[in-house]
Amino acid sequence: MTYSVKSYAAHSPTSRLGLFNLDRRTPRADDVVIEILYCGVCHSDLHNVRNDWGHAQYPMVPGHEIIGRVVEVGPKVERFKAGDRVGVGCLVDSCQHCAACGKGWEQYCENGATYTYNGTDPVDGSRTHGGYSEKVVVKQDFVLKIPDQLDLAGAAPLLCAGITTYSPLRHWNVGAGSKVAVVGLGGLGHMGLKLAKAMGAEVTLFTRSPGKEADAHRLGADHIVISTDAAQMTAVAGHFDLIIDTVPYVHDVNPYMPTLAVGGTIVMVGYLGPLDAFNTGPLVFSRKALAGSLIGGIAETQEMLDFCSQHGITSDIEMIRIQDINEAYERLLKADVKYRFVIDMASLKEEVVA
Amino acid sequence: MTYSVKSYAAHSPTSRLGLFNLDRRTPRADDVVIEILYCGVCHSDLHNVRNDWGHAQYPMVPGHEIIGRVVEVGPKVERFKAGDRVGVGCLVDSCQHCAACGKGWEQYCENGATYTYNGTDPVDGSRTHGGYSEKVVVKQDFVLKIPDQLDLAGAAPLLCAGITTYSPLRHWNVGAGSKVAVVGLGGLGHMGLKLAKAMGAEVTLFTRSPGKEADAHRLGADHIVISTDAAQMTAVAGHFDLIIDTVPYVHDVNPYMPTLAVGGTIVMVGYLGPLDAFNTGPLVFSRKALAGSLIGGIAETQEMLDFCSQHGITSDIEMIRIQDINEAYERLLKADVKYRFVIDMASLKEEVVA
Repeated sequence: MTYSVKSYAAHSPTSRLGLFNLDRRTPRADDVVIEILYCGVCHSDLHNVRNDWGHAQYPMVPGHEIIGRVVEVGPKVERFKAGDRVGVGCLVDSCQHCAACGKGWEQYCENGATYTYNGTDPVDGSRTHGGYSEKVVVKQDFVLKIPDQLDLAGAAPLLCAGITTYSPLRHWNVGAGSKVAVVGLGGLGHMGLKLAKAMGAEVTLFTRSPGKEADAHRLGADHIVISTDAAQMTAVAGHFDLIIDTVPYVHDVNPYMPTLAVGGTIVMVGYLGPLDAFNTGPLVFSRKALAGSLIGGIAETQEMLDFCSQHGITSDIEMIRIQDINEAYERLLKADVKYRFVIDMASLKEEVVA
Repeated sequence: MTYSVKSYAAHSPTSRLGLFNLDRRTPRADDVVIEILYCGVCHSDLHNVRNDWGHAQYPMVPGHEIIGRVVEVGPKVERFKAGDRVGVGCLVDSCQHCAACGKGWEQYCENGATYTYNGTDPVDGSRTHGGYSEKVVVKQDFVLKIPDQLDLAGAAPLLCAGITTYSPLRHWNVGAGSKVAVVGLGGLGHMGLKLAKAMGAEVTLFTRSPGKEADAHRLGADHIVISTDAAQMTAVAGHFDLIIDTVPYVHDVNPYMPTLAVGGTIVMVGYLGPLDAFNTGPLVFSRKALAGSLIGGIAETQEMLDFCSQHGITSDIEMIRIQDINEAYERLLKADVKYRFVIDMASLKEEVVA
């Protein structure tokens, strides 16, 4: 059988998303068929739909923060059965034999990982489609188990916003005694505060504008620093072991460098592109580093979900209906969401394909 | 007694260096008085003399690759005695109580290390003067022992060029199996090749122009990559664990990023200043890092000297007389030296102060 399923898709960089019927592949022996219950709305959905990164193909069904239930499994699937609570993040395949894959770093696959949407399936060459949809068909190795304790809707953003901040916190060995700062309080930033706090770090939020103090403290920040206030910035000179910079557009990173301790690292997780006049002086004079990090591997994503379950962590979400997605994108552009839109996919059932 | 000693000094950013009599401090209880035999000529001497970094004070006696013999020690000095072969590098003091000093990272002293010249002594506020001189007076904790096996003149550049490349090689755990590249074949670059090879790494030289193959191989390079040749650059895509970038002026770092392996780091040791349009994309997509590193701590510098002694490593030098220093600077600007000028300080004895 072929899964022709209702999906919300973009058909051009400027179009509003609308209802389409799009095929999903016939399940292979190691595939899991998932009925989608919730899908988070990531800022990169907007970038992809609008072709900001130049490799969009249409029709495109966005969505890589997918939560659902297994409805069918292929004959070789042993880890999942119908009814299981599962998730799918940004990746649905990788070569699984390069050095990076061998280390569990499928996100850095040297032969190119397969993204959940706007990608090409390496087996049959079909286009991959994401979670703004009734169903998705995914190779079992790339399906995550959602622990029973986690709220399903609140767990959806863990699959991108959560792992994107969890992975650098782990890679740079954050734990009790670490001093961590997060730049920006959006979908990624609010997860960064929660996760760093749960790991035992002293946590600071850098933000450009006052008014976020109460929320930031509630989410896990011990301190808030207004990054446009020179006195506040000077007061944290040499303080942080790790800064996670979640800002998704070009910005000046130089002002944060003096706030790193000797040997400290600032990790970009939001912005991809050229920096204007980034100064190497602080790198040399204090052995600091400017680094980057991309989501996480599959095993690490499962570890993050289990960590969140143990610590009672989910995303703060605003639930929307699929019919609201275009307006949600407009609000996303204005950072008008606390802190992640999640689509209740039950709303898609109301839609009738003409 | 006061040490009024003959020195070659600059008295303005544009002056030629000339002979001066300048005071050295009366030795304190923990000071070592050193008769200077050789002094290396570092590219940063030129930057400092010409006030490229904006904090020059004159008269300035450059030189921080100092080799000499102890002629006198203060009453609390136990580690040195008259006649010892010793060296002084870029540092002559630090606070010795901050977190960085506590880790042996005097070069990153949070209260500001005292540089060998163009610095201010923290005890009496006098100006520090460097190695283009008859004598230098230095606190024993900042004096290095020169192993008997090392040629004294060839050891001088180890104290800056050597430690500047040794420290990042050690910090980023280079050893057997590591794949290391060095950008630029100058004073730092040629030491980088020798040291990385001695540590067991596979070593590659990035250079912009052909013609350096034989020399690079002799110095330790297994491979040479012409960085302006797109095919050669593509052939080493994803290859290096660590790149040491020794280029001392602004240049485009972006072309080297694809040659790093997943998780690889490029370390700037030569250039201090803004980069034009450095792209964060490769950092994010492969967890790469742009870092910096500055000389090394005192214990690490001693370790480097001992390592060089064990492996028979010194700098390739061109010996000059102090009277040749201004011409040597002109040649340095044209990278016309293989690979480090070292001043034979015996030549200074011929000079008569008017």
